[in-house]
Amino acid sequence: MRSAGIIGLGLMGGSLARDLAAAGWRVLGDDRDAATLAAALASGVVAGPLGEADLDDLDLLVLAVPVRAAADRLRWLAANVDPGSGVVVTDVGSTKRSVVAAAEAMGLAGRFVGSHPVAGSHESGWDAGRAGLFRGRTVWLCPPGDGGADAMRVVEALWRSVGGDPKRLDADAHDRLLAAVSHLPQLAATSLAAVLDHQGVAPGDLGPGGRDTTRLAGSDPDMWTDIVVDNADAIVPVLESLVRELDALTRLVRQGDAAAVRSRLERARAWSLGT
Amino acid sequence: MRSAGIIGLGLMGGSLARDLAAAGWRVLGDDRDAATLAAALASGVVAGPLGEADLDDLDLLVLAVPVRAAADRLRWLAANVDPGSGVVVTDVGSTKRSVVAAAEAMGLAGRFVGSHPVAGSHESGWDAGRAGLFRGRTVWLCPPGDGGADAMRVVEALWRSVGGDPKRLDADAHDRLLAAVSHLPQLAATSLAAVLDHQGVAPGDLGPGGRDTTRLAGSDPDMWTDIVVDNADAIVPVLESLVRELDALTRLVRQGDAAAVRSRLERARAWSLGT
Repeated sequence: MRSAGIIGLGLMGGSLARDLAAAGWRVLGDDRDAATLAAALASGVVAGPLGEADLDDLDLLVLAVPVRAAADRLRWLAANVDPGSGVVVTDVGSTKRSVVAAAEAMGLAGRFVGSHPVAGSHESGWDAGRAGLFRGRTVWLCPPGDGGADAMRVVEALWRSVGGDPKRLDADAHDRLLAAVSHLPQLAATSLAAVLDHQGVAPGDLGPGGRDTTRLAGSDPDMWTDIVVDNADAIVPVLESLVRELDALTRLVRQGDAAAVRSRLERARAWSLGT
Repeated sequence: MRSAGIIGLGLMGGSLARDLAAAGWRVLGDDRDAATLAAALASGVVAGPLGEADLDDLDLLVLAVPVRAAADRLRWLAANVDPGSGVVVTDVGSTKRSVVAAAEAMGLAGRFVGSHPVAGSHESGWDAGRAGLFRGRTVWLCPPGDGGADAMRVVEALWRSVGGDPKRLDADAHDRLLAAVSHLPQLAATSLAAVLDHQGVAPGDLGPGGRDTTRLAGSDPDMWTDIVVDNADAIVPVLESLVRELDALTRLVRQGDAAAVRSRLERARAWSLGT
């Protein structure tokens, strides 16, 4: 019987716990919130609390905690795991450079592969988790510079076993890509919501298009603060591009330059149609 | 048997034609595109082409043309309608100040009420129309300064008869409101798409959140050029607010000011939850 430890039993960790338990793994869990851990244990999905003494018996340890808490957990792991233990370690965070660098710095490169399952939601907590969350989802895998091939095979097999689609990517490239495809839309929605708020507009005043464009404003502030601060140097350039783009468009609208406004609307539509 | 003329047989005009014909109206139609008019006639929904000679026999005339084409049609109407005719005139455009001002300038204030059914879509053309499009939708009604009470009653009854929810609003207030709730989200999505395009990101690379935030980038460039140019003076201030908001957020991210970033994320979430 394979054994997994999962630290953090929210949406991601809790969903993975359900999938692994259903596949016959023995799952031990931990969470900084005692009520969350109690709910996970009461459900029967999590077989017991995860302690230091269990580390060497695990096949797999998953850090499903906010980005900026992962380094602390890696430090705890490095201090307590037997160097000869076969435990493979991964995480589920939305940024990858800092956690991969922390694993390298703590001598865990051989047993660590960073994971980012693209399966987020504005929901959180044990009750938000569900079996099958990762089915059909891309999972970015970012190995350390001197990562181990065995650890990569284990982590790839893990995500495939829960229906995910693992893809390898350098941690730098991952964080730059995510700054554009995920972090920028989040901050655009946050800023748009602020303007609508100042204008006295409530979400219920919006049509379907406005609702779509601002939906991400409802995301978890704690999780996103971590992501934004952790990936700041990749986010700032794309935010600056968006400011320049909106500033140029504002100038064209002010000038009543219909041809230039149409050209921008046409280019955006062509992009959205993939042409 | 009541008789309606509809100029412009796209999504809005074509949908209204279907609803009115089903309710027993005789619908005459016109479209600048001969194939569109032919399709509408072939469907049996539109009983015949609308000509100048028909104007005095209509109970209702609906201008379902792009915002900047409406004034031309009002001029044509003013030149051809008998001053003693009882025909009531409305439109379906997304901005209201310019069309209401045009109706006033052409001496049509007594028979005109501007309408804006909030039932848009990225689809267009006769085939995009469907019965029931206006059901449950807000319809903003903007009368001229010296508008007629009879015309208002007719236009309110029209939209109620197709399931819409008519609400009166001054044309100035309407255009300022729509600049925030509709035109700003459109231009934010257009600009976000431009940045993603520059970054080499395709729509298929986005997760669900990024897809929602950029969906409006696929809107019709011609229709939106008209709206943006027509409502420029209301749009520019909210665009400037969005630029300032994003610029301030960029500075905070660059400084790594986690508390200030979190505060902005929290305020946006509170807005989205209506708290």
